Amino acid sequence: MEDEIKITEVALRDGLQNEKKFIETESKFKFLKLLEEAGFNHIEITSFVRKDKIPALADAEEFSKKLNFNDDKSYSALTPNSIGLEKAIELGYKEIAIFGAASETFSKKNINATIQESIEKFKEVSIKAKQNSIKIRAYISTIIHCPYEGKIDSEKVIFLIEEFLNQGAYEISLGETIGLATSFEVEELLSKILKKFPAKLFAGHFHDTYSFALGNVSKSLEMGIRSFDSSAGGLGGCPYANGASGNLATEDLVFFLESSGYKTNIDLEKLILASKFIEEKLSRNLISKTYLAKK
Amino acid sequence: MEDEIKITEVALRDGLQNEKKFIETESKFKFLKLLEEAGFNHIEITSFVRKDKIPALADAEEFSKKLNFNDDKSYSALTPNSIGLEKAIELGYKEIAIFGAASETFSKKNINATIQESIEKFKEVSIKAKQNSIKIRAYISTIIHCPYEGKIDSEKVIFLIEEFLNQGAYEISLGETIGLATSFEVEELLSKILKKFPAKLFAGHFHDTYSFALGNVSKSLEMGIRSFDSSAGGLGGCPYANGASGNLATEDLVFFLESSGYKTNIDLEKLILASKFIEEKLSRNLISKTYLAKK
Repeated sequence: MEDEIKITEVALRDGLQNEKKFIETESKFKFLKLLEEAGFNHIEITSFVRKDKIPALADAEEFSKKLNFNDDKSYSALTPNSIGLEKAIELGYKEIAIFGAASETFSKKNINATIQESIEKFKEVSIKAKQNSIKIRAYISTIIHCPYEGKIDSEKVIFLIEEFLNQGAYEISLGETIGLATSFEVEELLSKILKKFPAKLFAGHFHDTYSFALGNVSKSLEMGIRSFDSSAGGLGGCPYANGASGNLATEDLVFFLESSGYKTNIDLEKLILASKFIEEKLSRNLISKTYLAKK
Repeated sequence: MEDEIKITEVALRDGLQNEKKFIETESKFKFLKLLEEAGFNHIEITSFVRKDKIPALADAEEFSKKLNFNDDKSYSALTPNSIGLEKAIELGYKEIAIFGAASETFSKKNINATIQESIEKFKEVSIKAKQNSIKIRAYISTIIHCPYEGKIDSEKVIFLIEEFLNQGAYEISLGETIGLATSFEVEELLSKILKKFPAKLFAGHFHDTYSFALGNVSKSLEMGIRSFDSSAGGLGGCPYANGASGNLATEDLVFFLESSGYKTNIDLEKLILASKFIEEKLSRNLISKTYLAKK
């Protein structure tokens, strides 16, 4: 349906990995259940990387073992390499995510590889994923601004999109990593991308560092995008990006979409209960405006 | 210039009147000076109403006496009636603001008059203001949603615009009082208004209760609006509107406008100093995202 929006809830992975406090596996699982009760079907669970690299997600395996992969939820895990992919497959994941950057410097700092090297690594992952009938979602970060390089050439984004589509990704999540892009810049980039590819291949992943995110969602909707990523309560951000105080809060996204006449199938009150639960565990105050106004 | 934006800084009036804590006159004056150092030329100072009605602004006269009305700043005061206007003229104001609502119920609850009664009262104020060469700015609140009546008929907004223009207002500030309107609704209303009147007559006054404000600013810019109201640090809101946690923060507005290539002539760092000062006086935490990311 034209007016139904897919929301990928990223608080458990993208959110928690940038929170200082480690959340116990049991609490992560409770948070997941609360999110599911609110109606989420697409949930990013964790990341399979070296445990010392992202301590917040060091329990990736233990947490994943608690999941029921046979129900109708779409759980995904970040698998930057073949070892991670194998672990994900072994645990039962049917969807994985790979993660590239349109900025050379950001790629090196974030995943310790040049863009070309990262593509080669992802190719290996993708081939193996397809052999195992695993769905592939691809993130492209720093699509407009990079904290190190400034404005990014849209050709670099388009190059990565082509590459990931060739590797078999069913959806590309366009990551505006540092929250600096305005709706005018989003319009400029999307108009170039959508000349070449259909809108249904893309999700918008906007950070809300300076409150620009919903304006970018609005512009993306106007241009035909019907899939967005967000994080319950606005959890997380990006540890490598200066001042990136957080992902777009799912509360703000859902309330904006519903107020705009789109269907999300998310129960906002139940979502707020999930955020309240994790807020207590994190012992810090969430600042999503919709959350604050309605909690 | 097409790309220059007028910002009317409303923290001292619209902001402080909705804060619980009374700010001493001396601190208000210091806050004003800090705002001026940041570059603001259009500053709403106070409101001339009965002292017991808005205790936060009970020092309207004392505060106004500290101002130098001969410099190049445009100071304005809310004058809902002739008594208020006379006081403002006596104190030296060269610009006043009147305040109507497009919702009948909101008008009754907010200013204790029907829309028609309020128009008659404003007419008296306007005639006297013009006789004294005082500029008139008119606010229309609840332009899209009313907390009591729900969605507002755009014809009611257009009726008030015509009325206020006939009374001699040089600018109409369109107030989206409860922050519920999406960019799609703003577009719908503005397209009707701008069929009848030129964009240069209007300012956008958006509340950021659910983070929708900058998307509305973005849409207004697209449609030709070049004047906006905002409140340093996001101070204030609307006491009669449920959940209206605050005005659009000037920090978010300025950073968005500058990032979008518009000129505001505001020094963001100095603005943040002003907000820091008032945050300490208010003893509560401000939640403007740009303020938090850059302070």
